[in-house]
Amino acid sequence: MSDTLHSQLTSTLLAAKASKQLSFAALAAQLGRDEVAVAALFYGQARASAEDVRALAAALELPEHSLAPLMTEFPNRGYAAPMPPREPLIYRLYEVVQTYGVAYKAVLNEKFGDGIMSAIAFSTKVEKEVDEQGNQWAVITLRGKWLPFSRF
Amino acid sequence: MSDTLHSQLTSTLLAAKASKQLSFAALAAQLGRDEVAVAALFYGQARASAEDVRALAAALELPEHSLAPLMTEFPNRGYAAPMPPREPLIYRLYEVVQTYGVAYKAVLNEKFGDGIMSAIAFSTKVEKEVDEQGNQWAVITLRGKWLPFSRF
Amino acid sequence: MSDTLHSQLTSTLLAAKASKQLSFAALAAQLGRDEVAVAALFYGQARASAEDVRALAAALELPEHSLAPLMTEFPNRGYAAPMPPREPLIYRLYEVVQTYGVAYKAVLNEKFGDGIMSAIAFSTKVEKEVDEQGNQWAVITLRGKWLPFSRF
Amino acid sequence: MSDTLHSQLTSTLLAAKASKQLSFAALAAQLGRDEVAVAALFYGQARASAEDVRALAAALELPEHSLAPLMTEFPNRGYAAPMPPREPLIYRLYEVVQTYGVAYKAVLNEKFGDGIMSAIAFSTKVEKEVDEQGNQWAVITLRGKWLPFSRF
Amino acid sequence: MSDTLHSQLTSTLLAAKASKQLSFAALAAQLGRDEVAVAALFYGQARASAEDVRALAAALELPEHSLAPLMTEFPNRGYAAPMPPREPLIYRLYEVVQTYGVAYKAVLNEKFGDGIMSAIAFSTKVEKEVDEQGNQWAVITLRGKWLPFSRF
Amino acid sequence: MSDTLHSQLTSTLLAAKASKQLSFAALAAQLGRDEVAVAALFYGQARASAEDVRALAAALELPEHSLAPLMTEFPNRGYAAPMPPREPLIYRLYEVVQTYGVAYKAVLNEKFGDGIMSAIAFSTKVEKEVDEQGNQWAVITLRGKWLPFSRF
Amino acid sequence: MSDTLHSQLTSTLLAAKASKQLSFAALAAQLGRDEVAVAALFYGQARASAEDVRALAAALELPEHSLAPLMTEFPNRGYAAPMPPREPLIYRLYEVVQTYGVAYKAVLNEKFGDGIMSAIAFSTKVEKEVDEQGNQWAVITLRGKWLPFSRF
Amino acid sequence: MSDTLHSQLTSTLLAAKASKQLSFAALAAQLGRDEVAVAALFYGQARASAEDVRALAAALELPEHSLAPLMTEFPNRGYAAPMPPREPLIYRLYEVVQTYGVAYKAVLNEKFGDGIMSAIAFSTKVEKEVDEQGNQWAVITLRGKWLPFSRF
Amino acid sequence: MSDTLHSQLTSTLLAAKASKQLSFAALAAQLGRDEVAVAALFYGQARASAEDVRALAAALELPEHSLAPLMTEFPNRGYAAPMPPREPLIYRLYEVVQTYGVAYKAVLNEKFGDGIMSAIAFSTKVEKEVDEQGNQWAVITLRGKWLPFSRF
Amino acid sequence: MSDTLHSQLTSTLLAAKASKQLSFAALAAQLGRDEVAVAALFYGQARASAEDVRALAAALELPEHSLAPLMTEFPNRGYAAPMPPREPLIYRLYEVVQTYGVAYKAVLNEKFGDGIMSAIAFSTKVEKEVDEQGNQWAVITLRGKWLPFSRF
Repeated sequence: MSDTLHSQLTSTLLAAKASKQLSFAALAAQLGRDEVAVAALFYGQARASAEDVRALAAALELPEHSLAPLMTEFPNRGYAAPMPPREPLIYRLYEVVQTYGVAYKAVLNEKFGDGIMSAIAFSTKVEKEVDEQGNQWAVITLRGKWLPFSRF
Repeated sequence: MSDTLHSQLTSTLLAAKASKQLSFAALAAQLGRDEVAVAALFYGQARASAEDVRALAAALELPEHSLAPLMTEFPNRGYAAPMPPREPLIYRLYEVVQTYGVAYKAVLNEKFGDGIMSAIAFSTKVEKEVDEQGNQWAVITLRGKWLPFSRF
Repeated sequence: MSDTLHSQLTSTLLAAKASKQLSFAALAAQLGRDEVAVAALFYGQARASAEDVRALAAALELPEHSLAPLMTEFPNRGYAAPMPPREPLIYRLYEVVQTYGVAYKAVLNEKFGDGIMSAIAFSTKVEKEVDEQGNQWAVITLRGKWLPFSRF
Repeated sequence: MSDTLHSQLTSTLLAAKASKQLSFAALAAQLGRDEVAVAALFYGQARASAEDVRALAAALELPEHSLAPLMTEFPNRGYAAPMPPREPLIYRLYEVVQTYGVAYKAVLNEKFGDGIMSAIAFSTKVEKEVDEQGNQWAVITLRGKWLPFSRF
Repeated sequence: MSDTLHSQLTSTLLAAKASKQLSFAALAAQLGRDEVAVAALFYGQARASAEDVRALAAALELPEHSLAPLMTEFPNRGYAAPMPPREPLIYRLYEVVQTYGVAYKAVLNEKFGDGIMSAIAFSTKVEKEVDEQGNQWAVITLRGKWLPFSRF
Repeated sequence: MSDTLHSQLTSTLLAAKASKQLSFAALAAQLGRDEVAVAALFYGQARASAEDVRALAAALELPEHSLAPLMTEFPNRGYAAPMPPREPLIYRLYEVVQTYGVAYKAVLNEKFGDGIMSAIAFSTKVEKEVDEQGNQWAVITLRGKWLPFSRF
Repeated sequence: MSDTLHSQLTSTLLAAKASKQLSFAALAAQLGRDEVAVAALFYGQARASAEDVRALAAALELPEHSLAPLMTEFPNRGYAAPMPPREPLIYRLYEVVQTYGVAYKAVLNEKFGDGIMSAIAFSTKVEKEVDEQGNQWAVITLRGKWLPFSRF
Repeated sequence: MSDTLHSQLTSTLLAAKASKQLSFAALAAQLGRDEVAVAALFYGQARASAEDVRALAAALELPEHSLAPLMTEFPNRGYAAPMPPREPLIYRLYEVVQTYGVAYKAVLNEKFGDGIMSAIAFSTKVEKEVDEQGNQWAVITLRGKWLPFSRF
Repeated sequence: MSDTLHSQLTSTLLAAKASKQLSFAALAAQLGRDEVAVAALFYGQARASAEDVRALAAALELPEHSLAPLMTEFPNRGYAAPMPPREPLIYRLYEVVQTYGVAYKAVLNEKFGDGIMSAIAFSTKVEKEVDEQGNQWAVITLRGKWLPFSRF
Repeated sequence: MSDTLHSQLTSTLLAAKASKQLSFAALAAQLGRDEVAVAALFYGQARASAEDVRALAAALELPEHSLAPLMTEFPNRGYAAPMPPREPLIYRLYEVVQTYGVAYKAVLNEKFGDGIMSAIAFSTKVEKEVDEQGNQWAVITLRGKWLPFSRF
């Protein structure tokens, strides 16, 4: 409902973060959350607690009232980028689902039975690895609760 | 080009696997590949080496010529399921990209610079975790080489 | 993977049900499941247990092997009808989501917090009511577990 | 025709409700309507009577003329959210239609004959249940008049 | 579920009608239904009663069992032609909805209040008029019950 | 080209009509046009003559120059509502085309030969009927010139 | 309804034409129709008269009954190629409409008033021109009756 | 890149043309271009030369700098109207491509070989014809250079 | 029109090429064409001359009549793969157009004026480069005739 | 996130370039980048280094702070033009992918194995050639690193 407002807030947050030269990792440490979750807060894809707002306002030196109530509302998730993604980085993740989706289903069904991996009772993180040749690798971990289909 | 043929092959492979009561994990051990990769082979989303075909034919007691050359051709990836996914399990992965895509981009750009996580120089795996309350969690790991945009 | 096979099975099941003059309600009683779940089994949108297959085969006088393994496989849900629905009856349900979706979200968030109603840990039923004027009313109940978004 | 105006009204209503700390349930009691209907009024998906406007203006301490005539116009329904839904909560309802739509049709036809469940001569409500383990369940009820296809 | 079967039935019906040189109007007289309804029966868009099947079988000299049960099943409406229509004749009707839809809504709301014209409690007919200059005019009449939105 | 301008004009016209408490029927009588045509003028879906503008300006007590030239331009038809319609009332008309389109074609071809019913050499009207039980019925009539395909 | 049948007929007609080494122009001369119309007959996009069938059967030495009744049925136009066109030649025509559509409308409205150029009371032809440099030019002429919007 | 600017320019040009009571034909004569080309200039679908701008500025009594550089930039063609067209007049042209596209291809290939009719080395014009009965006919001519596919 | 036939031909050609262990490059040398053109012939995206068919039949030891006339017909281009591409390799080319399309236009307009690069008077080739570190690079060259927009 | 801001920046850059009468080639020389890359910078499709900003600001006589930080942010690529392209010049490139995509894949797989040509480790350039007849040809070169699919 407040997509335009949130997109202005996104700009404000990103500008403050840039001017403070703070990384998502640094902010994550201050909020006690993962850096992906903090970035999701910036883009209106996750909900901030009152403490999150307080910590964020302090870290970014922004007035708390400029962040709340917008960041503590129930987010209107799913609108931050078009689907299918046009951005090459996000498209690669989409392509993984397109290419390996049926394989994930086959393996998950075999391991867990009839159900799904929750995207709600869920966390995710991003890590950097450097191999022996000095190549950098991005590692994304998705961890979701297994939910079996109810029998009714 | 051989989508119908491959979908018949998929049925043959799955039926043999069921009748042999072999898991993807067991097959993966015999092929020296990850179980997601083996499932991707079943659905025509990955390419089998000659050795893969040999091992698979042996494990499933299928004639090698019924698997090759179809499985060793260059796969026509991306057609195993429609997008957006309609299957609830696969949709949840799509939803993760829809919800967290911009956050992943923000964090990855911050950690690595201007580029993408490759979906080609890439591996993935599925693990099961059980927490102290006995809840089951699915953990999917995506590991892709970081590719910086060339300056030109 | 076996959409054509399942659609043949759907025809077989419906024909047997018609020739036996059995209602979904009667079959549901024999399987110990809800009639919507039984109809979902017919259309490949739910998974049958071995007992379901046995009971169904008995009730419909069909050989068990003609139902299993197809009905006990992990279903490939979501493909039984196109979306948006073209069938007027199914469209009305879609229209309810289109019209009242945001209202449901507002009320559910207020009542439960930040999360979703699960469609997996979920059951549903259909009832008939007749009011004092003799009008018939269809009552559909959706009951899903509330899943709060994880904080991470 | 007044979508922008109504979206401003939505913001005004939500802000007043938040500042008064009134729930949809409390407002519903004051209007003599269901809380889903009140939320639908907020989002321009239902029509307010003159009494509704009076009661709402009083409860929210907003001038009546700021609510009427916009809320008493014939609503332009169906535009409050995109379809297919991107919001996870609303998507789950869409998925229920996608997965169980044909089963609902089969059961409803069997119970009522050839026709549809009206989405117009229709009401809906949301309830919260807590089971013995303390799990919360959302229960959504859809109640629509059965309309048989006319013979002509 | 039986779309292919029905499309074969459509061909059979049309061929028999052509060889008997019977018009829809003549068949309609024999069934006691409107000619649009009869054509809708041919294309699987309406449900035949047992009497309809008997009369149709007699008129077309087709065995009854070749028409029932397919024609007496609950139809899977809405699939007879793609939307938007590509056929010029059907497109013109679509264009009428596209051009005059909002005007119909404005006039209907003014005349009847907040509701819809039912497409279920509904009949329609086609007539031919010839004006004084000898021009032919097609007149299509849509007659639907007015359904007011329930207050809840 | 002047969609925003026309949408402002639509608001002005509707507000004036509301404040004068004039129905489309009353305006239609003053313009010598049908009420659907008048509503179409309001929404920019039909072209006003100079006399229409004069009569409308007089009836609504609006300055003529605020209506012309916008209402006398050649309209940019077809943009007043999205297709497929999301508004339930307009959707029902769309559903009629979707369900009965092929039947209309079959009957019209039989009655008139190879051609179409014009949507240009065309008029339409809306009437209210009340049956013996007091039920209200909306009757929409479409009358279009028959245009046979040219032989070339 | 007989799309598969017509596509087989298309193949038969094209094969016979090729083996007889007859051009569309030659066939057009024998049928007294334009060569575009003859090609449209081949692809099921126009209706053949009984004489057309007779002349075509004679010219192509095909049995008349293999052409009628399929070619004399009322065609199901508009399905011969997908839109937007993927074939480069047909795409160029689509691009002309995309680029010059609004200009055509502006000029036609200025020349003729408020209406459309009919695509039904319509003929078209293709000509070849060679300029002084030996360049070949294709000239496509569209000629449609002007239909003014009715005033109602 | 300057779509909003150009759409303002379109309004300015059309308003000046209306107030000067100049037809596209009259302007075309002054620019030495076809009237369709002039209309295309108005809508940003063609590029103006410096002389075009001078002549247009003079004819419409607009300052040259209000037309250049916008009209002399390389146009961003193809965005003047949505596709498929919703405007009935433009839709009829689209329908011609949809219905006769394959026939044009068949005839053009036969006459010219393997290639396309260029939409770039291309001109078009609109003419009015009146037949003996006084009926008006619109004649649109498309003339494009034939481009054979290169052999490589 | 003969898409199924051509897709069978594609399989035949690929199987023969595989069994003869011939590369596209080797075939290209025998036909005097580029290897991309030969692959396009395989997939029905280019037209074979009589000599091409003769050479191909000889090289692959297939009977000439099994290749002609299908390969010498005017191809129905553009249907070999869906758009947007799902295959990762083809998608990368699509992404290049998506990302750099406007930049190509800006540079081409600056270098050549108002026009397009032809995709018809066009050739393309694929080359392999290996850099000093042993990395492999694919180089695709597109060469098209510049076509200026006609002034009319 | 700053699409509107960047589109204003695009206008500023293009206006400055026009007023300075600088070509992309000239700017490319000053930045030590390719002219396609410079154009991509203008449209927000590539990332500028601090040196790029300095050189560009100097060449265009714009204040550096009006270019940074917008041009040095991580670009949100892929949104500069709709897909499929409507602009004729960009469409031709899309058509090349549509027509020759499968042929490129076949040839690239044969030459390199199972993998893709990177669009990230990638450069591209545009050249002009003039043949002996004075015809101009545009030559676009795409050079991407070959990335083999990882075996896992």
